[in-house]
Amino acid sequence: MNNRFELANAIRALSMDAVQKAKSGHPGAPMGMADIAEVLWNDYLKHNPEDPKWADRDRFVLSNGHGSMLLYSLLHLSGYELSLEQLQNFRQLHSPTAGHPEFGYAPGIETTTGPLGQGFANAVGFAIAEKNLAAQFNRPGHTIVDHHTWCFLGDGCLMEGISHEAASLAGTQQLGKLIALYDDNGISIDGEVEGWFTDDTAKRFEAYGWHVVPNVDGHKPEEVKAAIELAKSHDDKPSLIICKTIIGFGAPNKQGKEDAHGAPLGDDEVALARTQLDWPHAPFHIPEPIYSAWDARAAGKAAQQAWDARFARYAEAFPTEAREFTRRMKRQLPAELPTEALIEQAQERGETIASRKASFEALNVIGPQMPEMLGGSADLAPSNLTFWKGAKAITPEDASGNYLHYGVREFGMGAVMNGIALHGGLVPYGATFLIFMEYMRNSIRMASLMGQQVIYVFTHDSIGLGEDGPTHQPIEQLTSLRTTPNLNTWRPCDAVETAAAWDAAIKRHSGPTALVLSRQNLPHQQRTKAQLAAIQNGAYVLKDPVLKDSEGTPKKPELILIATGSEVGLAMDAAAKLEQQGKAVRVVSMPSAYRFNGQDAEYRESVLPKAVTKRIAIEAAHADYWYKYVGLDGRVIGMTTYGESAPAGDLFKHFGFTVDNVAKQANELLG
Amino acid sequence: MNNRFELANAIRALSMDAVQKAKSGHPGAPMGMADIAEVLWNDYLKHNPEDPKWADRDRFVLSNGHGSMLLYSLLHLSGYELSLEQLQNFRQLHSPTAGHPEFGYAPGIETTTGPLGQGFANAVGFAIAEKNLAAQFNRPGHTIVDHHTWCFLGDGCLMEGISHEAASLAGTQQLGKLIALYDDNGISIDGEVEGWFTDDTAKRFEAYGWHVVPNVDGHKPEEVKAAIELAKSHDDKPSLIICKTIIGFGAPNKQGKEDAHGAPLGDDEVALARTQLDWPHAPFHIPEPIYSAWDARAAGKAAQQAWDARFARYAEAFPTEAREFTRRMKRQLPAELPTEALIEQAQERGETIASRKASFEALNVIGPQMPEMLGGSADLAPSNLTFWKGAKAITPEDASGNYLHYGVREFGMGAVMNGIALHGGLVPYGATFLIFMEYMRNSIRMASLMGQQVIYVFTHDSIGLGEDGPTHQPIEQLTSLRTTPNLNTWRPCDAVETAAAWDAAIKRHSGPTALVLSRQNLPHQQRTKAQLAAIQNGAYVLKDPVLKDSEGTPKKPELILIATGSEVGLAMDAAAKLEQQGKAVRVVSMPSAYRFNGQDAEYRESVLPKAVTKRIAIEAAHADYWYKYVGLDGRVIGMTTYGESAPAGDLFKHFGFTVDNVAKQANELLG
Repeated sequence: MNNRFELANAIRALSMDAVQKAKSGHPGAPMGMADIAEVLWNDYLKHNPEDPKWADRDRFVLSNGHGSMLLYSLLHLSGYELSLEQLQNFRQLHSPTAGHPEFGYAPGIETTTGPLGQGFANAVGFAIAEKNLAAQFNRPGHTIVDHHTWCFLGDGCLMEGISHEAASLAGTQQLGKLIALYDDNGISIDGEVEGWFTDDTAKRFEAYGWHVVPNVDGHKPEEVKAAIELAKSHDDKPSLIICKTIIGFGAPNKQGKEDAHGAPLGDDEVALARTQLDWPHAPFHIPEPIYSAWDARAAGKAAQQAWDARFARYAEAFPTEAREFTRRMKRQLPAELPTEALIEQAQERGETIASRKASFEALNVIGPQMPEMLGGSADLAPSNLTFWKGAKAITPEDASGNYLHYGVREFGMGAVMNGIALHGGLVPYGATFLIFMEYMRNSIRMASLMGQQVIYVFTHDSIGLGEDGPTHQPIEQLTSLRTTPNLNTWRPCDAVETAAAWDAAIKRHSGPTALVLSRQNLPHQQRTKAQLAAIQNGAYVLKDPVLKDSEGTPKKPELILIATGSEVGLAMDAAAKLEQQGKAVRVVSMPSAYRFNGQDAEYRESVLPKAVTKRIAIEAAHADYWYKYVGLDGRVIGMTTYGESAPAGDLFKHFGFTVDNVAKQANELLG
Repeated sequence: MNNRFELANAIRALSMDAVQKAKSGHPGAPMGMADIAEVLWNDYLKHNPEDPKWADRDRFVLSNGHGSMLLYSLLHLSGYELSLEQLQNFRQLHSPTAGHPEFGYAPGIETTTGPLGQGFANAVGFAIAEKNLAAQFNRPGHTIVDHHTWCFLGDGCLMEGISHEAASLAGTQQLGKLIALYDDNGISIDGEVEGWFTDDTAKRFEAYGWHVVPNVDGHKPEEVKAAIELAKSHDDKPSLIICKTIIGFGAPNKQGKEDAHGAPLGDDEVALARTQLDWPHAPFHIPEPIYSAWDARAAGKAAQQAWDARFARYAEAFPTEAREFTRRMKRQLPAELPTEALIEQAQERGETIASRKASFEALNVIGPQMPEMLGGSADLAPSNLTFWKGAKAITPEDASGNYLHYGVREFGMGAVMNGIALHGGLVPYGATFLIFMEYMRNSIRMASLMGQQVIYVFTHDSIGLGEDGPTHQPIEQLTSLRTTPNLNTWRPCDAVETAAAWDAAIKRHSGPTALVLSRQNLPHQQRTKAQLAAIQNGAYVLKDPVLKDSEGTPKKPELILIATGSEVGLAMDAAAKLEQQGKAVRVVSMPSAYRFNGQDAEYRESVLPKAVTKRIAIEAAHADYWYKYVGLDGRVIGMTTYGESAPAGDLFKHFGFTVDNVAKQANELLG
């Protein structure tokens, strides 16, 4: 009784009605892609609306996230916990139906999308995770990881540079279970795309090693279905299905035009669309037969039960692997964490090494005990020191490794890591120079927004990198990271703090961690047991005055030097000099302002007492961030200009990072 | 007597010797591309070493900027003011021969390169500028703009996403005089690229509408020459010449390997290379016959003189156009600037409009009087309001317009604008949502580093954009912009400050300006003449206490509210309420912290007197930035989390941007 067109029209009606009610939103993409979505969800998507976290479900990514009502309609119609009332609250405060799909807001949203191109790159990450886990866990006759990643994307996604990085990597890795469906509607916000987007997209993707199904009529279910069959039959290459569609399909005066993209159609046009689509039902009314044709719960439950039985057989045959798979999918840490011992060992060893080197040492103890760590670097492995001794590259032929050569693709790496983290079973870490954090910047924000455990290894963290010069020397980047909500940024001062930072990073499941590391050697700092434990507070007193008053008790500090990373050694040396000059100085090491800000007021006061207003922050990065801690009465020895090309030692001197300058500034401040 | 190989070896020798002496640097690319460079510079490049600023010179961009010694060698050998001693000071403090080519450091460096892919996008910008100026100024029989843009690039550039955005745009715009030469050496830092980069690059570029010359032996001058001839003959498409090369060519043990990429070869290998290359000369010694074969001064002078004569004839036939061309290439402003009057008019009109709308109004008066303005948006023209009434799109067939539809390519737009600005004759402005600044982030930094006049129109500047939700709502982005050295960021509070911001932007030649604008309406503020003039100081007293003491003189402020943009209206309303409660309140509007920080101490003290320590900064953006101005005794009403999807009014209330909350916080602070 229901024909496919009618089923698709349920999406169109819900979408145009919700946008109309919200008085904002994007009806064009949902109405244009409704037929494609209907075929995919009703005939192919493997999912169980009653268990949106089932490990072996297919992953569905709406990379053109502005078409969120498409996804909400699909979730609602197929039986997820997303009510009609919630659809009616589209784009309202605290509703799960936000303007763009937000991970964690409604069940079945696999990733937050909206910033164009990133959803597509997330999908590549999902597909890499699937292939990697399949290679690690499946055994002959026991296939427990076996699902597809489906991605909808639009012209905007394909214009973005990240689509190149992600598609190129997907082609190289031959991700045969990644199938992308391109909403080729010829329209973007400025109008008809032929004025600014004339790529031969089929040819472009073939150049990446993709299998392309071109010229599919996205409004003919049988054509879509044939294309998907073809895509599924090519399991050695990712597939791109190019669907010709009409944006806003069904709205007689606005379809095929940019007007349909990002604004309500208007009451009149909505009414006309109802007629044109032959959809006589009231707003938000879906007839029961249509609901029941869409309902995916029974099929989903059966599919999951079949998998459960398969997994039970697997667990019998391979109990260790099954336990490990379950542990990893639950995001549980191994029973013993290697990093805690490492912190103490590093303190005992007392090495003067670069923090990137200390990070390498940390990876060498973490790696063997945490097979879920999936490393990588944007073509800087020998500099970032991320290819640890047990690292094994993932290749098209053998995907069981634990390391991805991402190539020179920072943004792609960031968004792929987000997909890997979202998939589950893996903890991605990826590296580049700190300055090139900028290339991947918005993917870091997305990991933070979604609360995903992604670990960034950012080396070459200041002018201390030396001769490569101002294009490579970070200045304002630390502030950018530190002001990103829910990102924990560490800038350790020696091998000990580096081990502590890694320890924190692998324990932090609620969001990403950035490790900001030096190229150059950093001196080891002495610490008591209490100081060692205090590193995890984010900031702690590394040194208090040794000067004593007439009673023989140590003086209270009259000056606090706050420093991080490579400047902690400088602060310690300057403090020693100032003490020689009779000044009572405290040195605070603050590797993680994020952690310090999360401590209670008492602890914060114990480290930075209000009474001590003479404070100097020292960091070879932009000065402005530090006024938060030194106030109007303090000073910052930092950077306010770009760096220069020269040996590191010359640069530190040139920009005033010297014991003499710190002592001079301190004496001026103390008056 | 000199054969081409010997001429190319002069580059190789200088490069390996300079890297060796500096004990750091990248010998691989210069040694691999030496033969290609020799053919291009000696047989094709139109330039005059004695006038590196000649308007009609060819532009040469080394996108793989780590190969800087290639460029320095070429500049030195062909007769630019770059001495042997300066080459010997490669990578030392204050030397023009920095680790990467830095614009302004040595003559003949057209753009700063190093961050991969951006040089290539700059080159697209150069070529767009050339085509645009040619269409605007050339007349039948009078060709005064007619030069090529040449770009060297490597694997890294081609892996970066920005290469997609720039190449796609170049193909669409049919930039026939752009010729890129790809150093296809199969090696990147992690090793042989086949493990992570398997694109069919020729096919990929054909998909963009480029003319591709594949499979050129980059060590055979005649093949390179034939390829360049072919490329030049295709003037309807940009050309990519794919040169197979050997990285580090000539170093017997390291050539063809990643070891040759980014570290000195070592004394032994350098000696062996001398033998292999048959280059018996001492380090940094170039025999006279080789210098003289390279010397491009006589030919360059002749070429420029021919152009001078051509321009003289043009000036005779088209005196107005010639004057205009000269003015624009000299980066002079027109005699009358429309924005100054606009500021006063906006004050008189007193409109309550969105600042993006006020920006549109500004563009409508600037545009007609400043034909050098070359606008654009990354596919958000109807939202950014950048397509002003006289805007005309640049198309492949008619390149004479003043507006580029960049497509959804933010990073490409940013780097293309840098190329346009560097070319001269044009002032680019480009727009996107403030949040997507992140996609183009490093290009903004590059404009700032190079001191180029690029204007960014960033609309939808806070949670005030409403329903699109957290992925679209900027939080930490303003801090990122404000801490970027040499970037002037404006966040105007009404139409008047918006006009002032545009006025400042078009007058600022020493660096870029970011205009941060609201989606939503902003109330008009009353101002005296003095206040109107004070906007240019970056911060000024918008309102002082009206409360009077017992003597009848206005009270001194006990509290300062500092606000920007959409929060200035809130601060004014809160101040009014607080005055009703008997509190003497000053309101400071700070549209440009950059400008305010540049004022003398006396002015800064007059606006923010040290004595007033009770201060509250109010901005719907990340709070941390503002401690610089409120100190440890002040408060910030800002954001420290992500936003939400909801109507703007609901969000401002939800996050505490209300008169009641400001008054409450103020009363708490005042105790």
